[in-house]
Amino acid sequence: MFRKILIANRGEIAVRIIRACNDLNIQSIAIYSRADRDGLHVKMASEAHEISEDPIAGYLDADKIIEMAKENGAEAIHPGYGFLSENAEFARKVRDSGLTWIGPSSEVIAKMGDKNAARELMIKNGIPVVPGTEPLNSESMHTIKLYAQKIGYPVILKASSGGGGRGIRVVYKEEDLQDSFNACKREAMAFFKNDAVFMEKFVVNPKHIEFQILADNYGHTVHLFERDCSIQRRHQKLIEVAPSPSISNDLRRRMGAVAVAAAKAVGYENAGTVEFLLDDDNRFYFMEMNTRIQVEHGVTEEITGLDLIGRQIRIASGEILDLTQSDIHHQGYAIEVRINAEDVRNDFVPSPGKITAYYPSLGPFVRVDSCIYKDFVIPPYYDSMVAKLIVRASSYDLAVRKLQRALGEFKIRGVHTTLPFLMNICKDKEFRKGLYDTSYLEKRIAELMPKEERDASDEAAVIVAAIAVRAGM
Amino acid sequence: MFRKILIANRGEIAVRIIRACNDLNIQSIAIYSRADRDGLHVKMASEAHEISEDPIAGYLDADKIIEMAKENGAEAIHPGYGFLSENAEFARKVRDSGLTWIGPSSEVIAKMGDKNAARELMIKNGIPVVPGTEPLNSESMHTIKLYAQKIGYPVILKASSGGGGRGIRVVYKEEDLQDSFNACKREAMAFFKNDAVFMEKFVVNPKHIEFQILADNYGHTVHLFERDCSIQRRHQKLIEVAPSPSISNDLRRRMGAVAVAAAKAVGYENAGTVEFLLDDDNRFYFMEMNTRIQVEHGVTEEITGLDLIGRQIRIASGEILDLTQSDIHHQGYAIEVRINAEDVRNDFVPSPGKITAYYPSLGPFVRVDSCIYKDFVIPPYYDSMVAKLIVRASSYDLAVRKLQRALGEFKIRGVHTTLPFLMNICKDKEFRKGLYDTSYLEKRIAELMPKEERDASDEAAVIVAAIAVRAGM
Repeated sequence: MFRKILIANRGEIAVRIIRACNDLNIQSIAIYSRADRDGLHVKMASEAHEISEDPIAGYLDADKIIEMAKENGAEAIHPGYGFLSENAEFARKVRDSGLTWIGPSSEVIAKMGDKNAARELMIKNGIPVVPGTEPLNSESMHTIKLYAQKIGYPVILKASSGGGGRGIRVVYKEEDLQDSFNACKREAMAFFKNDAVFMEKFVVNPKHIEFQILADNYGHTVHLFERDCSIQRRHQKLIEVAPSPSISNDLRRRMGAVAVAAAKAVGYENAGTVEFLLDDDNRFYFMEMNTRIQVEHGVTEEITGLDLIGRQIRIASGEILDLTQSDIHHQGYAIEVRINAEDVRNDFVPSPGKITAYYPSLGPFVRVDSCIYKDFVIPPYYDSMVAKLIVRASSYDLAVRKLQRALGEFKIRGVHTTLPFLMNICKDKEFRKGLYDTSYLEKRIAELMPKEERDASDEAAVIVAAIAVRAGM
Repeated sequence: MFRKILIANRGEIAVRIIRACNDLNIQSIAIYSRADRDGLHVKMASEAHEISEDPIAGYLDADKIIEMAKENGAEAIHPGYGFLSENAEFARKVRDSGLTWIGPSSEVIAKMGDKNAARELMIKNGIPVVPGTEPLNSESMHTIKLYAQKIGYPVILKASSGGGGRGIRVVYKEEDLQDSFNACKREAMAFFKNDAVFMEKFVVNPKHIEFQILADNYGHTVHLFERDCSIQRRHQKLIEVAPSPSISNDLRRRMGAVAVAAAKAVGYENAGTVEFLLDDDNRFYFMEMNTRIQVEHGVTEEITGLDLIGRQIRIASGEILDLTQSDIHHQGYAIEVRINAEDVRNDFVPSPGKITAYYPSLGPFVRVDSCIYKDFVIPPYYDSMVAKLIVRASSYDLAVRKLQRALGEFKIRGVHTTLPFLMNICKDKEFRKGLYDTSYLEKRIAELMPKEERDASDEAAVIVAAIAVRAGM
């Protein structure tokens, strides 16, 4: 086992990794930007070194991070999520320097990072992907119509060089295909100087279902069931649930087997996630594979009792996975909400600043992973997520009730947070039913918006209120 | 389901019950003595009423508690543990007043509270008890020797009216029996004015293994596996583990079946605990049944994912238990340590006073049930337990490591606590092996005693230290 690990990250995931190191009796090295010098990860690690005056550059400086690891006696680097965690070049440099990379190989990261290559690989291995065509150049409208019939309406036309929502047309019936195709080509040329367009099945309001994979370096690959991450705002996940409250055991089994097959197809090692779209008819399509630990890994830990960060480290150190698929069980339901320092009523704009009071929820079936404390000043340079609140219970319904209780106890003052917004979601009938898809939040957001926020500046009153968390208040 | 429950308790268990009420959307009524007016249970309940100026009398005043419940619209009373929780008369009065008692019937409490009656009932139902005799009055020494042979040495002689460790003799071989018997009789007469003595098998250094029972009002009875509570100081549990790291699945199954049979024999309803002594040869003996929720219920919640307080309330409201034995699984290991405000190095004397800094452990696989907060003044009148720290992991070994990490993060300043002592146990090789019995702490206590304690008065330095929880510090 490693004696010392450098954590190439900050915030709550760095804290989470330090705790895993402590569990395994491994020394931890934190790195930090000048702006992060009071970060909790700096205070909790065995040692901490400033990597840059610049708030961002240091966390992205592969060479400097490796140098710092070697200088201070680290034997491995954990990248967390974000920053360099899916940078194949960094993973390769870490390996070439003689250090251990806690994650899949550089080659696997590269392969899964190229979305087209990943799609081709999955098709070759019989993994279902969203049906689609190559770029359509010289095909006749007759041929294109045949493609669309084969794929099935609705279809979506996309500019091959597109992005940012430009050069996209959804087509619901054949009579609209020609006009839409021509319009899409014109827009593609206008915006991207390239009129190549391809066609895919348009999955209407899918669910986002992702399977957690664990694989050791010896070909043993298992899944730890799924997370339902359908509750998103502009493709940012806000709430994650494990297992999904809306899929059957049979579908779970089938999707799990496909997720393991997908990981095996690419020779995956360490922890990773296979993301699927699931449509209304329970058809599912490989979307992508995330080659790192994810923000929402905690809900999987809660239902399986398995420590994913600990497993990542143990696998990277060369341990054989001592779990077969039949050893892995899920118990009850876990829900995570991401608590962001944002002003919800002002288009979710980040709300950095000083935490004047901090009372995380405690007690039964509640977990808080966070990087803040009273008097900490949230820097303005980073992701606005400052805490993850996770609850679990024996049923989805009871988990939602526990979430409501725990949200009611959670108090952060001094900055705006998403807590009131999350509470409104928690009380929402549709959410309580568990039958949401990726369109849920967009449809309901106006109703879920907090009506008013209490004055966050009256610190004295607020601390009293934080203690006096009366039921129903 | 109830709309409002009165909680006839204080401290962490009152807070725990309030949280269960919040989960179930039930209003909670706290009662409090004048000394407890700043208690967390007072601040967290839906409403709170002072029951007495006296620190203790109010919590023991059955009539006043019932009156307060009725006046304020409660439909049920949860007694917690301690105080009136095993008082059959109180349970009867609650029922007679038309309120619901959240616990087993008054008759069952009375029957299990009479240790001799309980023993007779168990014998009648084929439940193994520690082999023993009736009081020996006119029997000849020849007959007494035959009894001892039948029971098997070592045996223990106990004054029938005894208590407090007086009038007790352990006899290891027959040649010592007569002298010990006579000495015991003399001592019994001298201390208790009654020379009746009885004989039992002396179980040498047993393990304390207890099974959690859940039973509804319709005859459905299940167990939720066992807790190993062998780590005790002067019969006070300090650390509890679920499941026991030292019993086999086969033994677990057999003991579980006996525990359910014991509960059924008495017509048990609601949550309860069947306590066994387990000897070195894996023979187990019914010791007693606790007719209430126990301090250590949390470890069972952690490994089964079932909310015991929630279940108590649901069962009392008339719900049918929707679990059969085969629905109940245990996952991993959970360990609880009791954090007491005590001066360990001064014979564990209580250490009441003002909490000047409070940083409970957070993060993955850690749970804290507590009743304190910064600036709270621990009153001198009550049990010294102020927090329970519970960890879980997929193996006993990993759970111990997580416990060490979580203890390292936990900071309470202003009063002495058992935290340094618990840390020493956590680091102890014997503890880490998991093979302790009830003699463990007595044997090891000198070595486990904290060598020195840092000055708890230097608040400013301490708050910095509490934030800077570096690994290994």
